[in-house]
Order: sequence, then structure tokens, then C-alpha cells
Amino acid sequence: MSLRNFNLEKYLKNGKTTYAQRENIEKLADELTKEGFENIVVLGIGGTWAEWYPVVEYCKHLSDFPIYLENAGEFLVKQNMSYLTKKSLVLTASASGNTKEILEASKLCISKGIPVFGFTKDETTPLAKLLTKAIYNPCGDCEDSYLMYFMLALRLYKNLGYFSQYDRWADQMKNLHTNLIRIREEFEPRAAEIARKYSKEPYTMFVGSGVLWGETYLFSMCILEEMQWVRTKAVKSSDFFHGPLELVEKDLPVFLVMGEDEYRQLDERVERFAKKFTDKLEVFDTKDFQLTDIDDEFRVIVSPMIATAILTERLAAHYELNTGHSLEFRRYYRQFEY
Amino acid sequence: MSLRNFNLEKYLKNGKTTYAQRENIEKLADELTKEGFENIVVLGIGGTWAEWYPVVEYCKHLSDFPIYLENAGEFLVKQNMSYLTKKSLVLTASASGNTKEILEASKLCISKGIPVFGFTKDETTPLAKLLTKAIYNPCGDCEDSYLMYFMLALRLYKNLGYFSQYDRWADQMKNLHTNLIRIREEFEPRAAEIARKYSKEPYTMFVGSGVLWGETYLFSMCILEEMQWVRTKAVKSSDFFHGPLELVEKDLPVFLVMGEDEYRQLDERVERFAKKFTDKLEVFDTKDFQLTDIDDEFRVIVSPMIATAILTERLAAHYELNTGHSLEFRRYYRQFEY
Repeated sequence: MSLRNFNLEKYLKNGKTTYAQRENIEKLADELTKEGFENIVVLGIGGTWAEWYPVVEYCKHLSDFPIYLENAGEFLVKQNMSYLTKKSLVLTASASGNTKEILEASKLCISKGIPVFGFTKDETTPLAKLLTKAIYNPCGDCEDSYLMYFMLALRLYKNLGYFSQYDRWADQMKNLHTNLIRIREEFEPRAAEIARKYSKEPYTMFVGSGVLWGETYLFSMCILEEMQWVRTKAVKSSDFFHGPLELVEKDLPVFLVMGEDEYRQLDERVERFAKKFTDKLEVFDTKDFQLTDIDDEFRVIVSPMIATAILTERLAAHYELNTGHSLEFRRYYRQFEY
Repeated sequence: MSLRNFNLEKYLKNGKTTYAQRENIEKLADELTKEGFENIVVLGIGGTWAEWYPVVEYCKHLSDFPIYLENAGEFLVKQNMSYLTKKSLVLTASASGNTKEILEASKLCISKGIPVFGFTKDETTPLAKLLTKAIYNPCGDCEDSYLMYFMLALRLYKNLGYFSQYDRWADQMKNLHTNLIRIREEFEPRAAEIARKYSKEPYTMFVGSGVLWGETYLFSMCILEEMQWVRTKAVKSSDFFHGPLELVEKDLPVFLVMGEDEYRQLDERVERFAKKFTDKLEVFDTKDFQLTDIDDEFRVIVSPMIATAILTERLAAHYELNTGHSLEFRRYYRQFEY
């Protein structure tokens, strides 16, 4: 099957380039472990915050080792961060390497004598110049970001004694991209149909939870709002029942992103409610997609990668086709100083 | 000046009843301190989560004593809450005393042998029967909830050695309600005008941050969505620049709730941007309102009470007048099992 505006060869090549970072990532994780740290502080904003979200959430499942996901914008102004010390391991990422809040937050850490490590496109970016050690990846889709961040975090957690399955997981991630191609192909007709049906809607509600909250937020904010100028609201499954539910009526589009972690029961409650009261409920359930040569126990880790392949990549491509609004075009974002 | 649908005498009487709980609240705080605890875990959802939000945020300013604000719905499913132990002090609130998630979360704590303390309407509610000790308040507006939660938390923090100004603050809170009447009167013409102008808008964006994030979320979700069926989106000031900004155009309503804590500079950045690109920017700045007989150093604590008086109370009353949709009417919420 052909996927609209999707270069299969390039995708697989980029996937290989990403996976090839495994050696560098593990080396970095091992060095950092050797140096030692008392907690992990992750700096993200917008898309990067969303991509780190499941990684940090998953780590919290593995252990109560202190790990903090910071909104880099708030990090710059908030007080009383007593956990941020020279014994903190600070991680960040910016593909472009020039996201304002990430640069400033990194500089703030460095000014306190705390080195920053992370990911960026290549050695020429402003972020690369700030990082004590960096992992470079010039290409890649969101699943590649998820993969690299998980690799770094899970290798650290393996070293700390909290994720002994690391090697088996990392070996199996070789099979990630071929799985995500098949999943894209399975989803393609639905992506086309959903975009046709909803791309002109004046308001679309997004609901999600657990490790998929990041992706729920990412698709609605980064893709629909920023890249398509489509009005959305994203709400966590538990909060749906306090306010947003009263907006639901027959013709209100509710997009429910459903995951496979312990929060799933919250999503299911939303599903039971919404299917009674709107004809426009669309459920995106990662459980509907098989994974070949990846163990079931790793499905929760892979679920945001599935969600991003079908939503942030495929559904976005079809929204673009229907709205006629290029995903590349911005009127304000990064167009001038603000 | 007359305030639409507002009973001045009743308001002042309710305010006195709330303030009169001071003795009970302080007694409870002192007993809890005596028994000792290693951290504080607060259970909220929807409106109660929003009302506890500034209290917990403010406490984090005062000290790094561990305090956690839990979404009671997520609390029921999430794993790895190693901080929840018999040495935790668990606090909650539900005016009605029958909020499903609050009851279940409280039961979960009790099943682990952890007692729960908090606030409810009176001794007859289901929550009252679960609480080891309760503070009753049969009446009151949102500012009364804020006041009682702050009283309990700040008395605890005084006892812990983190808020020596407690007595002076609590004494000055006697003057809260008369201040909030004057502030209501000052805001009234603007409330009428804003509701007239925006109540039929198909989509309104709310932006806020810091201790006012709870109130920003509360007004958009509880009042506009739940009680008025008005479509909204609430976003934190720092996140506004990653996604939502691209939606802004001349006729997009952006309601910016502006506070007085260290996050204010994030709000100011939104203001500078939004006023260039929409004709429908409305700024609700607590700094615009004087406080008589309340020291400036307490303004941050009072700011959510100001915001709730002008938004969740006054602006709501005027939305109701313009939409013709009673604030009491719900189609789903608490109308049946879901």
C-alpha cells in the first residue's frame, strides 16, 4: 500500500541511523552512571516535553528514584528547586537546537555548575555548544526521539538496577521501524477517512492519559494547532468527567487516545460515556496494533511510538491534504522575536 | 453599586462562618503536627484539585518539605506511590461530600491504614463518614475554600517552622471578604461588558500560570464548560508559545489571568504577544485590585481569591445572564452513573 507523502526508503534509512546511535547512547549512559548522580532532571518544552513525558512516567513505574520532568519555560522562573544540585543529572533535547527556553534553561544549569547532556541535530546547533556531551541525530520522526530518549533513560535505569530487561528490549527495538510501517499501512485508510471527516471541524476534543498523555497533547498542540490552525482542547481522561463532559453532544468530535498502561481504565470510562453521547467518537487504541518480534512486556514503552506514527505522522499528513494548509507553514512560531 | 444576583448580607455572613472555622482548623493542624508526618498528600479532582493547586504551589515556595497534589482519579490507578505511607498526612475536600473519585481515593488510603482529614459541608455527607477528623463549612464561595485550605496548610507550615507570619496573615484574613466585595464592585461593569461581548463566542482561550493556574483551569472547565456549555481551551503561559499561539488571530478571544508570583513574567510575555495579534485580548490582573488592611507580602496568597471573586463568581453570573443557561443546570454531570 502506498502511504501519502511518505518516503519508505528514507524512513527506514533514518530509522537505521537512529538505531545506530545505540552505541553512543549506551556509552554516554554508562559514563554518567560511573560519575554518579542523585536525581535526574529533564528539561523539555512543547514537543520535547511531550516526547520526554512517557519516558519519565515509565521510569517512575520502574523505581522511586527521583526523576523530574521540567517545563523549561517554568524552570526559568520557578523558585525552590532544592533538588537541582551539582549531583543532578540534567538531560534535554532540541532537534533544531535553538529552542529558546531549552537554551536558557540549559544556560541556567551551567551557570550553577551543573552540566547538561542531551540530543540535538548535529554539532553545529546552539544547543550542541552548551551540552557537555551530546547525541546527534540529524533526521528522524517522533518515534525516533522516543526511541533515543527511552534508550538513554532505560540504560541508566538498567545501570541503577531497575531495568534488567534493557538488552533484550534494546535488541528488539531493531524491529521497531518495520512494525511501524505495517501499522501505518493498516491505519492509512482510517487516517484518510478521519481527516476527510473532521479536518474542518471548528473544535475537536482530545482525551488521553498515562504514558500517552504526552502524545495526546503533542498531536493536538503541535500538529493541529501549530501546523494546521485547527482549534482543539486536550484533557486527561480523569479530568474529562469534571467539566468537559458537559460539552459532549451528538456532533462534538472526541478523539480518545487509548493506551496499555494502568491508566487504561480511565480511558475506558471516557469511551463508555462518549459513545453514548456523540456520533463523532474516534478511538485510537494502540492495543489494536500487533507488534512482531517485540515482547508484550515492552508494549507500554512502544505505545507512544505507535500513537505518534498513526497520529502525529499519518493523520497529520491527511489533515494537510484536506485543509490544504502546509504542515511547514507558521505565521508566528519562530518567525520573529516574541 | 448593586451586583447582579449577589446577596451581600448572605455573602458576609457566609464569610464570617468560614472565618469562624479558624479555631477548628488551627486545632486540627496543631494535633496533626503533634502526631507527626513525613509528607503531605492532597487529594483533589476538578474544582477541588484547582482550589488546592495554589495552596500546594505556595507551600512549595516556603519549603522543600514534600507535598504532593494528587488527581484523585489518577491516584486510584497509578502505581509506584512509594511516598504514600502511614507517615503521610492525607488531606482532601469535597463540599458536596459525594464526589466519586474523592470517596474512592479516601477509601484507598484508609484501606492502607492511612487516615484522611479534610473539608466537607457537614457531618451527614459520605465523605464526612470517612474522614478521621473533618472541618465543616455548609456554605461559602470558592474564596472560602481557598481560605480554609490555606489556613490549614499554612498553620501546618508555621508549626513546621516555614511560615512564621501565620498569625498576622490569619488575623488579616478577617478583612478578606470586605475587600472582595469592593473588588467585585470595581469589576462589575467590566464583567457585564465582557460577558455581553464574549458569551456567544465559539471558542475562548484561557492562559494563566503559577498560583493562578488552578483558577484559570477552574473557570474555564467548571464554569464555562460544565455550567455554561461554552467551548474553551486552557493553557499555561509557558506552553502558549508552543502550539496555541498559531491559533491567535484578530477575532480569537484570549483571556489572560495574570498573577503576582514569579510566573508573572511568563504571563507578561503572553500579553505582549497577544495584544499585537488579537483585538479580543482580556487581561485579568490581580495587581489591578488594592487590598485594604492586608499586607502586600500576602498578595500572592490572596491572588487566587481575587481571581475567583471576579471570574468564577462575578463573570459567571454575567455569562448566565447572557447565555440564558442556568449555572445550576447539568445534562450529565452527577445526573446518573457513568
